[in-house]
Amino acid sequence: MSPRPAPQPRAAYRHIRAIPTRWMDNDVYGHVNNVTYYSYFDTVVNGYLIERGALDIARSEVIGLVVETRCNYFRPLSFPETIEAALRVAHQGTSSVRYEIGIFRAGEDAACAQGHFVHVYVERASGRPVALPDDLKRALAPLVV
Amino acid sequence: MSPRPAPQPRAAYRHIRAIPTRWMDNDVYGHVNNVTYYSYFDTVVNGYLIERGALDIARSEVIGLVVETRCNYFRPLSFPETIEAALRVAHQGTSSVRYEIGIFRAGEDAACAQGHFVHVYVERASGRPVALPDDLKRALAPLVV
Amino acid sequence: MSPRPAPQPRAAYRHIRAIPTRWMDNDVYGHVNNVTYYSYFDTVVNGYLIERGALDIARSEVIGLVVETRCNYFRPLSFPETIEAALRVAHQGTSSVRYEIGIFRAGEDAACAQGHFVHVYVERASGRPVALPDDLKRALAPLVV
Amino acid sequence: MSPRPAPQPRAAYRHIRAIPTRWMDNDVYGHVNNVTYYSYFDTVVNGYLIERGALDIARSEVIGLVVETRCNYFRPLSFPETIEAALRVAHQGTSSVRYEIGIFRAGEDAACAQGHFVHVYVERASGRPVALPDDLKRALAPLVV
Repeated sequence: MSPRPAPQPRAAYRHIRAIPTRWMDNDVYGHVNNVTYYSYFDTVVNGYLIERGALDIARSEVIGLVVETRCNYFRPLSFPETIEAALRVAHQGTSSVRYEIGIFRAGEDAACAQGHFVHVYVERASGRPVALPDDLKRALAPLVV
Repeated sequence: MSPRPAPQPRAAYRHIRAIPTRWMDNDVYGHVNNVTYYSYFDTVVNGYLIERGALDIARSEVIGLVVETRCNYFRPLSFPETIEAALRVAHQGTSSVRYEIGIFRAGEDAACAQGHFVHVYVERASGRPVALPDDLKRALAPLVV
Repeated sequence: MSPRPAPQPRAAYRHIRAIPTRWMDNDVYGHVNNVTYYSYFDTVVNGYLIERGALDIARSEVIGLVVETRCNYFRPLSFPETIEAALRVAHQGTSSVRYEIGIFRAGEDAACAQGHFVHVYVERASGRPVALPDDLKRALAPLVV
Repeated sequence: MSPRPAPQPRAAYRHIRAIPTRWMDNDVYGHVNNVTYYSYFDTVVNGYLIERGALDIARSEVIGLVVETRCNYFRPLSFPETIEAALRVAHQGTSSVRYEIGIFRAGEDAACAQGHFVHVYVERASGRPVALPDDLKRALAPLVV
């Protein structure tokens, strides 16, 4: 199996979003379920894009479709913690963006989990990939590492 | 059909918890799905109990089982809003508590949705109803209307 | 508190949909979380409407908005059970339909949970209530008790 | 960015589980949300282990903790489809198992999405990794490729 990555520090990211956990996030073993981390991922990515004006869910002509996600889990989290989802952009292609996310416990510097999330941007009507729009590139600029 | 209740104001509740919506909360019609409101309900109830020391998920000998829930939906909410879940206790029986919850949009005084959530408190090991423990009754006192 | 209803038998319903539980349905106490039952409710209602041709999620001009839901929980269910969601129509108004749902364990005749789900049908573009369309009324006819 | 893998055929897997989609699986763009695929992953893995007697959620002294997951998404799926989750074991370490999963549309031979899910098996009480128990190894044998 491929070697396990090391947890990254907060300084490796460019944007932070606090996400309170919910009762349902805990699974039967008492910790946030592995699936739920991906809900934190698409919340921090899409929340950022909407709040910077680069995505309007109902009206944008260009939308991001997810083509790949991955997560490594280092230490468990549990409801009722508020976690922090940290975001950066690691790569921009012609039509795609690779976002990287760290999930932190409040007050800790090493990620409890980290992963990536690749969006391909497509014309909503046709589903065809398009060049990254200028407003998206402007919104992403502060996230680029 | 039974008459539809009127939306209640914030002053009708005793405790507020901010809950940021998540990307997945929106359903295919672009609004928070009806199911998700119940996730806000059990988050505000159990979050309150844990933070007041009346519930330890892993160790409490007495736990609350849900026997009835209901919600009326008045106006839609959408990601990426942060909603506020407001809580009160409307009734305490021998073993049960009826919590009532209002879901508010930030800055609005009329609930967007409201409902209730009835817990029966049971001995964890046997599942048998027990009298409400004193630490639970103390935690609930500020919520009683 | 209002009196607790009695569990209904399968014969009280008109349509059944098998729904396998998922790992995430179980909460920290090892049973299907109260919230998840409502996901079974909107799956049996909307699945029925789509499969009978009365709802096309992307194209229908008339869609159902949920204005009220309720559930009573009698006995727990757990992953990996396959549950059965049973459906009937208890009332049709000018623009609204009251669906009633029972959640059954395979091989049992008394519901483990039961509740209702009220749709108001609206014009998708304006959100205004409309008279129930004829194709919807035809689809509902076999469910009416 | 690393090259995108090619969709695998059904014959590459050793076990299949049908999973009906649910209304809530669809996100605002009308397709099963990227997060939900991971719920299919842990349902097919844990469902298999439970049904082969290698996992008892409440009592097993050894449980699997998820340390890494990944998914590539090739073509969208939507409620009310029933998808098929196909499973194989690609690697067994001392304490870990790498499961690989393909998500198929009924009647199609190329995966709509595929990924992996790595469990480290630990003693439930201490959280310490343990050698894979014999009953687990027996349950996994038919999945090994």
